[in-house]
Amino acid sequence: MKIDKIVEPIESESGMRKMVMSTAGDGYLIGLDFGSESARGVLLEAESGRVVGSLTHDYQHGVMSASLPGGEALTRGWALQVATDYTEAAEVILAGLGRGRRVLGIGLGFTASSPLPCKADGTPLSTILPRNPHAYVKLWKHQAAQPWANRINARGGDYLANCGGKLSGEWLLAKAAQIADESPEVWNETERFIEAGDWLVWQLTGHEARSESFATYKAHFSRERGYPQDVVAGLAERLADPLPVGSSAGLLRPVWCAKTGILGEPAVAVAIIDSHVAMPALGVVDSGSLMGALGTSAVFLLLDKTARPLPRGIEGTAYSAAIPDAWCYEAGQASFGDLLAWFINAFPRSGNVKDDFAYYDRAAALRSPGAGNLLALDWWNGCRVPFGDSTLSGLLVGMNMRTTAVDIYRALMESICFGARTIVDLLASSGSPIERVVLTGGLAQKNDVLMQMLADILGCALEIPRLTHPTAIGAAIHGAVAAGVVSDYSDGAGRFGATDYRIVEPTTGVFPIYDERYRRYREMSDNSSVRNVMHALNK
Amino acid sequence: MKIDKIVEPIESESGMRKMVMSTAGDGYLIGLDFGSESARGVLLEAESGRVVGSLTHDYQHGVMSASLPGGEALTRGWALQVATDYTEAAEVILAGLGRGRRVLGIGLGFTASSPLPCKADGTPLSTILPRNPHAYVKLWKHQAAQPWANRINARGGDYLANCGGKLSGEWLLAKAAQIADESPEVWNETERFIEAGDWLVWQLTGHEARSESFATYKAHFSRERGYPQDVVAGLAERLADPLPVGSSAGLLRPVWCAKTGILGEPAVAVAIIDSHVAMPALGVVDSGSLMGALGTSAVFLLLDKTARPLPRGIEGTAYSAAIPDAWCYEAGQASFGDLLAWFINAFPRSGNVKDDFAYYDRAAALRSPGAGNLLALDWWNGCRVPFGDSTLSGLLVGMNMRTTAVDIYRALMESICFGARTIVDLLASSGSPIERVVLTGGLAQKNDVLMQMLADILGCALEIPRLTHPTAIGAAIHGAVAAGVVSDYSDGAGRFGATDYRIVEPTTGVFPIYDERYRRYREMSDNSSVRNVMHALNK
Repeated sequence: MKIDKIVEPIESESGMRKMVMSTAGDGYLIGLDFGSESARGVLLEAESGRVVGSLTHDYQHGVMSASLPGGEALTRGWALQVATDYTEAAEVILAGLGRGRRVLGIGLGFTASSPLPCKADGTPLSTILPRNPHAYVKLWKHQAAQPWANRINARGGDYLANCGGKLSGEWLLAKAAQIADESPEVWNETERFIEAGDWLVWQLTGHEARSESFATYKAHFSRERGYPQDVVAGLAERLADPLPVGSSAGLLRPVWCAKTGILGEPAVAVAIIDSHVAMPALGVVDSGSLMGALGTSAVFLLLDKTARPLPRGIEGTAYSAAIPDAWCYEAGQASFGDLLAWFINAFPRSGNVKDDFAYYDRAAALRSPGAGNLLALDWWNGCRVPFGDSTLSGLLVGMNMRTTAVDIYRALMESICFGARTIVDLLASSGSPIERVVLTGGLAQKNDVLMQMLADILGCALEIPRLTHPTAIGAAIHGAVAAGVVSDYSDGAGRFGATDYRIVEPTTGVFPIYDERYRRYREMSDNSSVRNVMHALNK
Repeated sequence: MKIDKIVEPIESESGMRKMVMSTAGDGYLIGLDFGSESARGVLLEAESGRVVGSLTHDYQHGVMSASLPGGEALTRGWALQVATDYTEAAEVILAGLGRGRRVLGIGLGFTASSPLPCKADGTPLSTILPRNPHAYVKLWKHQAAQPWANRINARGGDYLANCGGKLSGEWLLAKAAQIADESPEVWNETERFIEAGDWLVWQLTGHEARSESFATYKAHFSRERGYPQDVVAGLAERLADPLPVGSSAGLLRPVWCAKTGILGEPAVAVAIIDSHVAMPALGVVDSGSLMGALGTSAVFLLLDKTARPLPRGIEGTAYSAAIPDAWCYEAGQASFGDLLAWFINAFPRSGNVKDDFAYYDRAAALRSPGAGNLLALDWWNGCRVPFGDSTLSGLLVGMNMRTTAVDIYRALMESICFGARTIVDLLASSGSPIERVVLTGGLAQKNDVLMQMLADILGCALEIPRLTHPTAIGAAIHGAVAAGVVSDYSDGAGRFGATDYRIVEPTTGVFPIYDERYRRYREMSDNSSVRNVMHALNK
């Protein structure tokens, strides 16, 4: 457990140290952000909107990619978690932030698609069949279900229309199909197949209240047609219809209030995909707002009130599943910051990663835009947009005897920005207006050189909210909506979201220089012979 | 002056230290190798064939690429030399090796095309117009004449048939055209325009005896048609018809005998392109023998008694101009060892270049053939074969997050071997038999890992003569032929050439693995869209 901020620790009646972060206000909101390695919570004063405490807790078993807790080995591409790590983290965080406080609402962001098989009473199968890997949570980045995605995609179906005709191996249907195929024992024992975020809400409230956030984006649910039928035998009866985002799943169960010391009867909002949940915290609640979350990988989300055809290459869209009453288009880059980290790792300079980043960023910033002859395709982790093809690979072209390590690093920076522009151009291609670009994530906060390059390459201003823990704060806003503390997400964004933005303006005259280079990037991307070679090399 | 080997230094009559390397035998041969930075000489006993001494001398002015001796600045792409540096080097070396010895024959290998303008008596214009850069020797790697080559190529002409329809900017016609165009002052003063190797033979013998070696390969001379007419105005009358290789240009002038202390009246052979001159020393004198000289760049030469159409992409062929009575096909790689040096330089590891090479070579050798997913195009210096296009650039494809620096280094090694196989395949494509592959140069001698990879990629045994200074020894064999010490080049090769070869056999079963990768290399090479992107990036 890591305590980020404690205003005033005091002695509780039981003699345990209780953390009281503030005595102001008469009610609190808690936002929970369940990531891949740990969970974070923030405590907000409902009246002032102030963040008065935050806390993180690492999962006991972390991401299991080599072996199960009992030592059983996993093959390559697997990534599992233990469901009870989530309840343990929730208890520690809720108690740490909420004990003795009157909490009005709780919201959760969660990784997705991270489904698990469980019994009808919510018991995870991993507690019953602990030596069977299929009994565990298949974390979003579990890649071993890709062959089942390929088979499902080969059959096709109308339900794939909103995800570009192609389901990812990371999504729920593929993971269900893998279990049904590889472990009939687990599949026969499975009474409910559920996203871990929904499962945790179920534990907290006693209600199996699934969220449209997960159901629409990760399991192809639509209000009109429900879940797709007959894709995976026996799946439909193991799912449940979801509730709209911002719905209350129910009140925090008395047993949870007792063990966490939380006062009152907080409403718990249905869970939200972690990459979506920050939107209201960042002020991204209106049509025309594009949000980018820039970390090791990147995700872009665009809100649009108008229904439009899904641009070819964009990965998904759903109505009302991120922010009510808006379409939210989603597309991402399989590698972003991790491409720069790869370079630093492959070619260490000083022995200190941070120093190396600082050196290369500084050196890259000294070059004028368009200097150097290099071009890279940023597909080190495959290409999500526009090809949805994880078997593609990275490319560098233009090297000569004067090419330096800095030239290559800078070309990698450009390539991830060109990847971002590819997404922005595709989103705009079907007529969606893009009026604001709001960026969050570690790269947006920390890498000014990269952000200036991105502004220059996109040719528009970037807004970077000065806000710590936007994901957990966004979750708290979902809790506020569910609890009726705010009237809607705009209200929530106004009261609890970002108020201070760093604006990165594009450098005058530089867009056309990068635009020329971007045309080459697209030309190289569109070269099917090059992609054929990548496929041949990857076999 | 660097003395490589002295058997027995004794005191001369003048009190100067005289180098006497051996007293055996009753006559000697001297071979001279005029490279880019220095000249080397070897002294051979005519009877035993033993190398009894060698000596190098750096040119006083080296390669001038930034400024003239007087300080006048040069623009990018220029590479000049001072003609009198050659006579100075010749005097030092001939005196150092030959003083007091009876020398029978002298031969010279020389960089080409490295022409200079001079007066009718051989006076270099640089002694008359020292501040005009066009008055100096334009070294082979002078690139600034490329625009004139492009113009000449655009006009075309039958005389280009034996060089694939395309003259290089490094060749004599392009360099003459640049002078005529840019400096009428120099061109008007120019009475003879001559390769530096021919010019030095002229100085040594008093006869302007040009060599078919330079004239055919670098100035498009043929015995049937002479030099091409009307390509560069006024050029034809500034040239002279050449003599066949192995001809005696004349005897060493008395003034040279006097200043070097050489006894007897040695015959001086016409000069030979340095990359061709080693052939008899390496035992490459018969049809079906392929010689490769592997250094920073690579050159391949194939002897064939039969006239065949020049395979598309091969750079040149001439009859009787390297070894009498054989066609000699020539093709090269613009970068070879320097590509590996680029990598070590761009990504230094230990701070010690030699240690870094050792580390990467060792690490690369530990990978099994075909391991890793990378593919490189070795065009860091442009591509000579098959495209003859210096504006192309390097490419790397197949990177993922697990790609290491060693993977990239190994891909670069593979790429230069694939470049070599491209040449070998093209040479074989018109029916020329390739019965032996004999390799020389620093990389062949020193990099066992690379040589094993090359054997595996070519799928044939490689012969690497254990012979120091093959170029200078080859020059001595030319001197022996000119002097009548041997009856022909086969005789010369037998008496003075290599007798001991390291044989590198291909690893059983590995050729098909690399063959598959090579197909991808050619597929990527042949992708004109990729080359278009390279051109766009290079503009």
